[in-house]
Amino acid sequence: MNMQNTPFNLAQCIEHAGKYFSHQKVITRKVEDDTLHEITYAEVLGRVRQLANALQKLGVKQGDRVGTIALNTYRHLEAWYAISGQGAVCHTINPRLSPAQMIYIINHAEDRFIFVDHIFWPLIEKLHPQFPKVEGYIVLTDKEHMPTTAHDVKLYCYEELIKDESTEFTWPEFDENSGSSLCYTSGTTGNPKGVMYTHKSNLLHSYAAGSTDGFGINSMDTILVVVPLFHANSWGISYLGPMVGANLIFPGKRMDGVAIFEVIDKYKATSAAGVPTVWTNLLDFADKEGRKMESLRDVVVGGSAAPPWMFTAFREKHDAELLHAWGMTETSPLGTMNRSIPQLDNLPAEEKAKIRMKQGRPVFGIDIKIVDEEGNELPRDGEAVGHLLVKGNWVVHTYFGADKPAVNADGWFDTGDMASIDRFGYMEIVDRSKDLIKSGGEWISSVDMENLAMGHPEVLMAAAIALPHKKWGERPLLVVIPKEGQNPTKEGIKEHLKSEFADWQIPNDIVFVKEIPMTATGKFSKLTLRDQFKDFYAEAE
Amino acid sequence: MNMQNTPFNLAQCIEHAGKYFSHQKVITRKVEDDTLHEITYAEVLGRVRQLANALQKLGVKQGDRVGTIALNTYRHLEAWYAISGQGAVCHTINPRLSPAQMIYIINHAEDRFIFVDHIFWPLIEKLHPQFPKVEGYIVLTDKEHMPTTAHDVKLYCYEELIKDESTEFTWPEFDENSGSSLCYTSGTTGNPKGVMYTHKSNLLHSYAAGSTDGFGINSMDTILVVVPLFHANSWGISYLGPMVGANLIFPGKRMDGVAIFEVIDKYKATSAAGVPTVWTNLLDFADKEGRKMESLRDVVVGGSAAPPWMFTAFREKHDAELLHAWGMTETSPLGTMNRSIPQLDNLPAEEKAKIRMKQGRPVFGIDIKIVDEEGNELPRDGEAVGHLLVKGNWVVHTYFGADKPAVNADGWFDTGDMASIDRFGYMEIVDRSKDLIKSGGEWISSVDMENLAMGHPEVLMAAAIALPHKKWGERPLLVVIPKEGQNPTKEGIKEHLKSEFADWQIPNDIVFVKEIPMTATGKFSKLTLRDQFKDFYAEAE
Repeated sequence: MNMQNTPFNLAQCIEHAGKYFSHQKVITRKVEDDTLHEITYAEVLGRVRQLANALQKLGVKQGDRVGTIALNTYRHLEAWYAISGQGAVCHTINPRLSPAQMIYIINHAEDRFIFVDHIFWPLIEKLHPQFPKVEGYIVLTDKEHMPTTAHDVKLYCYEELIKDESTEFTWPEFDENSGSSLCYTSGTTGNPKGVMYTHKSNLLHSYAAGSTDGFGINSMDTILVVVPLFHANSWGISYLGPMVGANLIFPGKRMDGVAIFEVIDKYKATSAAGVPTVWTNLLDFADKEGRKMESLRDVVVGGSAAPPWMFTAFREKHDAELLHAWGMTETSPLGTMNRSIPQLDNLPAEEKAKIRMKQGRPVFGIDIKIVDEEGNELPRDGEAVGHLLVKGNWVVHTYFGADKPAVNADGWFDTGDMASIDRFGYMEIVDRSKDLIKSGGEWISSVDMENLAMGHPEVLMAAAIALPHKKWGERPLLVVIPKEGQNPTKEGIKEHLKSEFADWQIPNDIVFVKEIPMTATGKFSKLTLRDQFKDFYAEAE
Repeated sequence: MNMQNTPFNLAQCIEHAGKYFSHQKVITRKVEDDTLHEITYAEVLGRVRQLANALQKLGVKQGDRVGTIALNTYRHLEAWYAISGQGAVCHTINPRLSPAQMIYIINHAEDRFIFVDHIFWPLIEKLHPQFPKVEGYIVLTDKEHMPTTAHDVKLYCYEELIKDESTEFTWPEFDENSGSSLCYTSGTTGNPKGVMYTHKSNLLHSYAAGSTDGFGINSMDTILVVVPLFHANSWGISYLGPMVGANLIFPGKRMDGVAIFEVIDKYKATSAAGVPTVWTNLLDFADKEGRKMESLRDVVVGGSAAPPWMFTAFREKHDAELLHAWGMTETSPLGTMNRSIPQLDNLPAEEKAKIRMKQGRPVFGIDIKIVDEEGNELPRDGEAVGHLLVKGNWVVHTYFGADKPAVNADGWFDTGDMASIDRFGYMEIVDRSKDLIKSGGEWISSVDMENLAMGHPEVLMAAAIALPHKKWGERPLLVVIPKEGQNPTKEGIKEHLKSEFADWQIPNDIVFVKEIPMTATGKFSKLTLRDQFKDFYAEAE
């Protein structure tokens, strides 16, 4: 052996934090009572080791899957490290999955134990009889808040479980290509599919995420982690934070503008990461109160595209930069990030602004391309739109338990997104391939239509869907939530859309609603919408 | 396979740069005529592939060693990638090595071909008969500047060699733990020892070096690479630059203040990396001309410690931050970097300033500790001084061709440095263990003495060495180069030293010289000094 080559174990992230960033903090809005809780990385490390000892006593073995159904808290973070660090697999489960999905994935993963927030226990208790392989539940709370159960199943109190354990633990050494964590895609068609991240893939992903063109944070930063720990690896921040010693803020269950503003303000958050809906509420609150987020430097947005007004609002009112990132469960998730490059400096301001709203450029370690239906690569001219393929060592190769690879013969993974790539390497998602609207043989982008509609001053949210139409095959319908106290008109919105869409692309109709159904990961549930409105154009000509 | 796991090949760095940072530049002060030359990463990539094709035709095979004896230029960079990318080993050789050392390492490495700057050809030509394994030399120049040789050996002109080759090349796939590059330590005792970096170790090192607490650069940066490509991997910047798209400036053979100032000013360099001597000349020039380096944000210093006045000069006159880094050939080389952490903000300014002059804290992936003679770990209190041990996946395990590991049973590498680590994790090199002066059983730090002496207003450089002494075992001698036009007195310097040293630690004598012998890597050659003055205290009592 020329150079040292100790297999990487994710526990090294929290060991490094405990040793070299011992005073930095994890701040949590507690699920129990919404109060704010602070703990140092040194303390977290001790508790992670205590939990690792406890899990060994429960009989957890290398390769075993252990689930978590929990919000972002320090205890959930501790569970991540204790599970993966000893060679078991941390299977994060979205608490908002439908019962059918939850039953499917817990059984498919064969989870032996599940960590669960006490607030989700009533839900899980009902489903327990459907989980034949689950031997016990560890409730992420203290004695005071422990629920009980009538079922014949072990129910452990997290704090009681760890309190008498040693704060020393020797992490085992194993192949760094072993699975560390498992996350199922939300699966809008067919059964959910599991992505098994490895210690190595997470290490490489974290290094890339920490680069100056990634999150670019260090111990001088405090990052608000709105993106859930159960959602695509929380964009890697749960590993990156400890690696670089950034303070973490976990908002618990309070995602409203008041609560989010409070933690940003109180802890001087410099950075934040989450889906657009949370920022809508936050900006709204700040506007109403006439307050500024003084410490905030950048806000990373992924999951779905942020509307143009949001970029302006953060920049002009809060001196903060909104950064688009793109990725998916299958990409760990960081694929691209929208950071500037010197070549943009020479462009007209308007063109530059448009480019900065794209999904971004690949970080080192990721390559992307767009291809036509036959797999031929399309030009990087910002015009051509094709299937977005991605390659890299933190991109899925084979779904958990699948018998064939998820990549093509050349090793590329098809994201299911339709995208363009411009001459500067900035990629823009035009649509999910299945959400494109095909009218009279021509494509209409639902994402572009939604973004433009959400730029209308009286529109809060808008979802564009394709509905079956006798004459045209499909025609768009726009579903709109007006802003509070506003009464936009159909004609007004259509006029607004005409600024960028041709007449034939304008939706035949617009419906106003109070709510748009969302998926468990915070995106518009177009499946549900399409179902809800399926006959809307049945009689139209 | 769960996640994609394509073996890493260093060629991916330059492929990424050519594709995603095509317009960014490598700027070189040409060795031929000292004019400035610019080339884009897209062009560099094409030439790297041309060279890779040419090397294949020369019969270079995976695992073969190919040497380089060259200054920092775009052609040298291209050679790096073409050699390593095809699976051969790029063996960088310091042109300033003594003939005996050069003969030893070229034969030990069994280099088959050597890339050489035309200015070094006369030197190498003389030694050629001593290199039985070398089949040919590729002179890094164009037709116009090609030397000739009377020897019966192949002499290729770089530009002629590549000009008709294809700009397409498919990099082979091989184990990422294969050797990519080889660098011998300067070896002040015994024969030089080779460190064989691997593709994987260089990848991990580059990611860490690119973090916000490392060099923290991206494509908005232009970095002046004073640290030679032949010196400890050029601190990894030759990989990091292309990875993140930073513009690189290679200064060729012009290291004087005028030339260095010119490239910083002309290309708006934001960052620079090199040993302290170069910055002394640069600051001196800027002072004399009354000019400011407007674009410069930070200057990374390694190799040896920068004197305190240099920190002040960069900060106060140029709004730039001087950052100490520490590492060695055996550590790829980045071990620690001196970046601030929030906990320093509460300290008195003077204490903070002292801490910021230490060698720094380990980047993620590296761990350090200090131990006593028996190997027991010493406290991290900033007081205890012990042998500095280091661990990490870009630290040497076994020297090239050695039959036993360079690490101890627990996998730690002994750096040969004596150091302290404070409660914040900042490490400070007190001395090379062999340069400590042991007088009457007590230690005196030569590094501390030199730093303090160089803070004297009339002293340009100072080296402290241990000389044999009948009564005390060893006693310090201080060798001083006065600043131009200054005449410091022995008594004046001794008084100055008394501000921090006890009376018994003050050197018995001080000698004034015009030059201090330097090693090939730009450090004081204490071996030569000790030899030169070996009888100086022979008669002293």
